[in-house]
Amino acid sequence: MTIDSRPLFGKVALIGIGLIGSSLAHAMRRAGLAAHIAGYSHRSETIEKAQAIGFADSFHTSLAPAVRGADLVVLAAPVGAFGELARELGPHLKPGAILSDVGSVKMAVLRDVGPHVPDGVHFIPAHPIAGTEQSGPESGFAELFDGRWCILTPLPGADEGAVATLKSFWQRCGSQVEIMDPKHHDLVLAITSHVPHLIAYNIVGTAADLETVTESEVIKYSAGGFRDFTRIAASDPVMWRDVFLNNREAVLEMLGRFNEDLSALQRAIRWGDGEMLFNLFTRTRAIRRSIVDAGQDIGEPNFGRPRTKNPA
Amino acid sequence: MTIDSRPLFGKVALIGIGLIGSSLAHAMRRAGLAAHIAGYSHRSETIEKAQAIGFADSFHTSLAPAVRGADLVVLAAPVGAFGELARELGPHLKPGAILSDVGSVKMAVLRDVGPHVPDGVHFIPAHPIAGTEQSGPESGFAELFDGRWCILTPLPGADEGAVATLKSFWQRCGSQVEIMDPKHHDLVLAITSHVPHLIAYNIVGTAADLETVTESEVIKYSAGGFRDFTRIAASDPVMWRDVFLNNREAVLEMLGRFNEDLSALQRAIRWGDGEMLFNLFTRTRAIRRSIVDAGQDIGEPNFGRPRTKNPA
Repeated sequence: MTIDSRPLFGKVALIGIGLIGSSLAHAMRRAGLAAHIAGYSHRSETIEKAQAIGFADSFHTSLAPAVRGADLVVLAAPVGAFGELARELGPHLKPGAILSDVGSVKMAVLRDVGPHVPDGVHFIPAHPIAGTEQSGPESGFAELFDGRWCILTPLPGADEGAVATLKSFWQRCGSQVEIMDPKHHDLVLAITSHVPHLIAYNIVGTAADLETVTESEVIKYSAGGFRDFTRIAASDPVMWRDVFLNNREAVLEMLGRFNEDLSALQRAIRWGDGEMLFNLFTRTRAIRRSIVDAGQDIGEPNFGRPRTKNPA
Repeated sequence: MTIDSRPLFGKVALIGIGLIGSSLAHAMRRAGLAAHIAGYSHRSETIEKAQAIGFADSFHTSLAPAVRGADLVVLAAPVGAFGELARELGPHLKPGAILSDVGSVKMAVLRDVGPHVPDGVHFIPAHPIAGTEQSGPESGFAELFDGRWCILTPLPGADEGAVATLKSFWQRCGSQVEIMDPKHHDLVLAITSHVPHLIAYNIVGTAADLETVTESEVIKYSAGGFRDFTRIAASDPVMWRDVFLNNREAVLEMLGRFNEDLSALQRAIRWGDGEMLFNLFTRTRAIRRSIVDAGQDIGEPNFGRPRTKNPA
């Protein structure tokens, strides 16, 4: 996987050291990509936890010293904070540096960060399609990006050398890299990530609010399917609030399609149209197989959850 | 877990030997619950596969010899077939035998099977809340029911001894057992299993039908959340068609609640109500923790999927 072993960068600054930032630090160390990793958080508890793990060379609660002299600066905070972060750190960026991010939306990042990028700094947004439901500096691990895709959304006219360097960076972190138009990115992610999270959050909320079925029953019998949804509905609340507030248009468009299709299914159930149900349920099985064949999920039953030997 | 090692039954007949039927055979063998296990399928290919694995003592494509002399008969076919199966096998049931099932709906089972139960046979519907997305006799395993719940829905006046025997049977198969009213069962399962499957099938269908995002993009970027839904959307199409056709009222009721809540979320996104989103996303995180604490899911990130060392 590692195609080159020379450090790509002298100093890399991670602005945010939660699940993604800390995983990136571990992956960079694994591949020897930076001579110095600087980690920033505005919270001193986060810095303390991160220092105890020790995945960066320096830790900062101020932006200026974190980014000073950095060859690559990666915004890895909730996207709603990007504008303010960029405004503050912009003046301290080194000419020739690459400014990138890991945000789940891309049009809003261009809108919020773009105006604060100084001349001579290469702004290249990025989005690694990887994560877990956990958050915080203790949840990161080096293998998070292995085999997953990272999408870069450079603007037309972006420096080709800088784009190639960032592409190499993500490949050496284990990812496959794709270049995409930012507006298209937001549409693709709305259906592959944002709407799935929304409906998972929604059904968990619905189940918790019922009067006719108790929360204890929902929990006990969750192995019937419900428990699968609770995993992504346990994802970081601030990160996901910011995703929905910042990809409004694409999420509402995809949600409209989802609702339209759900109404048709609802009608099929009401009128007993078994053929319509059977045909859909057969088609969807094939897509699962394609995802497993593409190496994007495990083929073992139940996501490879261990077969319980010692029941609770 | 095994509280007693004497066989509970002389002969047990499994009417259907797919995922659940074959797992039940393995679990019965593990605990030594039957002197003879008879397996029935109307398909000779299924019988051939099952014979090669050898999880039963006799295999049948006719109902009469399968159930003749059986102390326990378990319907483990798609619920839409139960009425016809019961009509055919009813006359061959031994007085004093227990007739049960593993169907995901219970009111429809009472409606369809009830009229065909001869006097002197104890009809006690049951539903083990366990499964995987796979199907067929080769997909079963002994540990499937370990630590999961099995719900019994005996009618008022059911023989207490027969209920106690069936309860003991499921406990020795690894399950925890609960007694429940059948109508309440159908409501509980509508929210914990049926509606989750429906929205999973639905979003996978929506994603496949888009004109603006290709199927190849959906597959590549599925690790953003979508892939989780494809697992349950790969479940057996006939089984699930029959569930929706036979739990119409409860599914439509719960789907109504889901839709109502989703409209409120849609509105919150449209109007930028971050507080509403944040509050919901925080509440749902707690439910995940309760499910893990209750032993109904694994606490490892990403369902414990292995950290990819060798990307595809």
